[in-house]
Amino acid sequence: MALDLFPLAGMVFDDNAAAADRGRVVSVSMFVAVLCLCLVVGHLLEESRWTNESITSIVIGCIVGTIILVSSKGKNSHIVRFDQELFFMYLLPPIIFNAGFQVKKKQFFHNFLTILLFGVVGIFISFVIISAGSWKLFPKIGFTGLSIQEYLALGAIFSSTDTVCTLQVLHQDETPRLYSLVFGEGVVNDATSIVLFNTIQKLDVSKLEGWAVLHVFGDFLYLFSTSTILGIAIGLLTSYALRALYFGSRHSTDREIALMVLMAYLSYMMAELSQLSGILTVFFCGIVMSHYAWHNVTENSRITTRHIFATMSFITETFIFLYVGMDALDIEKWKAMKTSLKTCFGIYGIIIFLVLLGRAAFVFPLSILSNYISSHSETSLITLRHQVVIWWAGLMRGAVSIALAFSQFAHSGVTWDPVYATMITSTMVVVLFSTLVFGFLTKPLINVVLPHHVHHGSDQQPKTDDITLSLIPPEDSAESGLQQARRSLSQLLARPVHTIHAYWRKFDDKYMRPVFGGPT
Amino acid sequence: MALDLFPLAGMVFDDNAAAADRGRVVSVSMFVAVLCLCLVVGHLLEESRWTNESITSIVIGCIVGTIILVSSKGKNSHIVRFDQELFFMYLLPPIIFNAGFQVKKKQFFHNFLTILLFGVVGIFISFVIISAGSWKLFPKIGFTGLSIQEYLALGAIFSSTDTVCTLQVLHQDETPRLYSLVFGEGVVNDATSIVLFNTIQKLDVSKLEGWAVLHVFGDFLYLFSTSTILGIAIGLLTSYALRALYFGSRHSTDREIALMVLMAYLSYMMAELSQLSGILTVFFCGIVMSHYAWHNVTENSRITTRHIFATMSFITETFIFLYVGMDALDIEKWKAMKTSLKTCFGIYGIIIFLVLLGRAAFVFPLSILSNYISSHSETSLITLRHQVVIWWAGLMRGAVSIALAFSQFAHSGVTWDPVYATMITSTMVVVLFSTLVFGFLTKPLINVVLPHHVHHGSDQQPKTDDITLSLIPPEDSAESGLQQARRSLSQLLARPVHTIHAYWRKFDDKYMRPVFGGPT
Repeated sequence: MALDLFPLAGMVFDDNAAAADRGRVVSVSMFVAVLCLCLVVGHLLEESRWTNESITSIVIGCIVGTIILVSSKGKNSHIVRFDQELFFMYLLPPIIFNAGFQVKKKQFFHNFLTILLFGVVGIFISFVIISAGSWKLFPKIGFTGLSIQEYLALGAIFSSTDTVCTLQVLHQDETPRLYSLVFGEGVVNDATSIVLFNTIQKLDVSKLEGWAVLHVFGDFLYLFSTSTILGIAIGLLTSYALRALYFGSRHSTDREIALMVLMAYLSYMMAELSQLSGILTVFFCGIVMSHYAWHNVTENSRITTRHIFATMSFITETFIFLYVGMDALDIEKWKAMKTSLKTCFGIYGIIIFLVLLGRAAFVFPLSILSNYISSHSETSLITLRHQVVIWWAGLMRGAVSIALAFSQFAHSGVTWDPVYATMITSTMVVVLFSTLVFGFLTKPLINVVLPHHVHHGSDQQPKTDDITLSLIPPEDSAESGLQQARRSLSQLLARPVHTIHAYWRKFDDKYMRPVFGGPT
Repeated sequence: MALDLFPLAGMVFDDNAAAADRGRVVSVSMFVAVLCLCLVVGHLLEESRWTNESITSIVIGCIVGTIILVSSKGKNSHIVRFDQELFFMYLLPPIIFNAGFQVKKKQFFHNFLTILLFGVVGIFISFVIISAGSWKLFPKIGFTGLSIQEYLALGAIFSSTDTVCTLQVLHQDETPRLYSLVFGEGVVNDATSIVLFNTIQKLDVSKLEGWAVLHVFGDFLYLFSTSTILGIAIGLLTSYALRALYFGSRHSTDREIALMVLMAYLSYMMAELSQLSGILTVFFCGIVMSHYAWHNVTENSRITTRHIFATMSFITETFIFLYVGMDALDIEKWKAMKTSLKTCFGIYGIIIFLVLLGRAAFVFPLSILSNYISSHSETSLITLRHQVVIWWAGLMRGAVSIALAFSQFAHSGVTWDPVYATMITSTMVVVLFSTLVFGFLTKPLINVVLPHHVHHGSDQQPKTDDITLSLIPPEDSAESGLQQARRSLSQLLARPVHTIHAYWRKFDDKYMRPVFGGPT
């Protein structure tokens, strides 16, 4: 398929079709073999204190890249060429659908406000800091040539995070709220950064005025709501179809699974077709399907769908990190870039600094805000230790950054413009650095920050030594004016959320579940 | 991917890349939506007396093709273009692996000799009849222009069968032996015809001499044995890896499934790479994996793998028939063909006649042979009724014929040569006719031939009214010389088979299972 195996393989003419076919078979075989190797090595190193799947895949990618580079006498270092169409049309949808399908809905919706705060408002803060920072700092180290639009794109590219590393270390049972926050933010922020990136692509920078930011935000809200509605509608339609048809016959399981997979994919494609955000649509489609449709199918279908999507997203993630590892050795890109080594390191340093800063700039303030408005129960506070984990969890950059960078700065995986080539290689380096170095430190860091973590989950009982950063220590005797105000604000916000949730439960039980299915 | 959506979409230049991307999104969405429709309609019509999945898909394909044809003002009738690379590299492997994975090994190996007889010797007979028949008869109705090599290819193309229709009607529990024979022959004959086709492709026709047939057979045997060994080796390697690694950790299920899927695919690709038959390799890999590897994984992995491959092969089959339905309305092919209507119908008639004849020419004689050499037990006889069902089951032509025809007579799904275009359209017509007409008659026919079939399986107790075609009625009193000879021949052949089976069971229990896994 359009894996575009062996760069240039697509360009051969009819006479060489057989040779090209053979080249393709060789490439696919090698890639699949290396993927298997990654799985096995990843498993063997799982108990290791330092590594994780992503690091393993990147390192294996680098090794294979070196071997290919040497054996092809420096011509190329990768087996397949990155194709953002492949990524956005075929690899991303299963990852995101799986996220929606596996999400613990109760936790997710319980923390919905905080997740939206981090995943949407936070990403906007991070986006502004990275865009403005790079726009200010790049010229200072002598790197110019990017337009305003491209600086804005950079902000979106480096605002998407990859929380897989941290999620591998956290345990859902031990720290359910923290897990839910990191997981939820990870998904929402992927969606936000992609939507933001697309909004910027359509932006007419020449007409950029003061209210343009508001305009971007308005576009974003429109996209967010319509995409969500489409996803929910398709999810409900599938649930209804599965319930109404009653697949109680011989091939029922295969047919049910096929219908769920195809409808999930269709939701993504229909959103893309309507110029909406496929990623949000497929995410909400996943949530609705796991809430209703999943209960209308046979037991075997349930188990299979749970794992089919998880496996697809697992293979895809391994595939992407493997690719990043190989592509790091791509000579062409390094040659095309024409930027001095000093400037390069300057760029990497600036981006990594901005990533650290941009994330700190929203995690800590927004956590305080979240604590402030939901301080009615001690257990729902985000402790400083948890804030550090959330901050750290979002430092890694991954597949989405790479895909967006290719989308912005390259065509069909190749770029000849030196400035663009520099941006591509910088994204590569930042992804490599953050995944390898930050990823490497994740396990030890979390063990230090959450010391009880390695023992059996004492997190559910809030620890007294946690610094709650609620600005004012709890005083039982006298309520200060500020605390009173805080409490009323909290109640104002908390009560509707709770009331809505209660009403929703009633509505769901009375009207939705009888029609669309669910545990009765 | 290289679905090559909207013919010519691949040819647009960089400026139109966005438009091409959009066209691709439209095509994929439409195709997925139509696939969903097929699933739902197929389910609704399942209890119908006349139709089956294949017919439903073809008819829906025709309707959609008509709609596209009308709305595109007669320009084209299909959404995607047939790509034999797509078919052979990505669609066929899961179908065949699934066949190996789901095969009832005990029944399959018990009937192994008979299956090989039908699937290998039978296909050779059918191949000779169709090749020779078309070579003799085509010039008589005024159709010339095919080379010897192409007549031979035609024989291979129309020797592959599509037994899905019949398998949908037969019940594994009611007629286990018949089901096993039809299923086993279906797989082996796909493999045989593809291997035969590839052998013919490499054949130097100018040097065709008397012993060339032997040479073809020799090549075939070499391919058959090496491919089988490779498949078994990779299956064993996977089983060993899964057992040795003991994936007892958090993501174990996803990792196990991923490893099985990837290794299965790798077996196919490695065979293709070594110029062997991927289809045989992946089939035997499937058998070995379901015999050993399947027992080394978690319960959830077992359920998921069972269904993951079944669903993939189900979607793929629907996809192919849908495509055939659409392609039937492809104006370009009909225009390119330049053959008079009379000649066309002559060709269709000849091919369908040869298909009927070629199959009858081996099913009945080989059944008698099979009965003759295994007449030691009454229950294992192939009754005349069963012979009719086996004959009928193999009359339908399907995806493999289409793919081989495209492979021989078209390049990238397009052909401009009038003679080649006639061959492509003839294959289409034969596939459509056999699937629709023969498929339509399958359920009623089987209900007539196997009248007890609709009730609960009385097949396991052999019925007395079955005509056993064993040439001589069983006489308990006196043994004729012929019968004696028959019995000794049968014992000669039956004893080694039984002995080998017993030794194998011992060997398997003692050496294989402890290493590669299995029920203990």
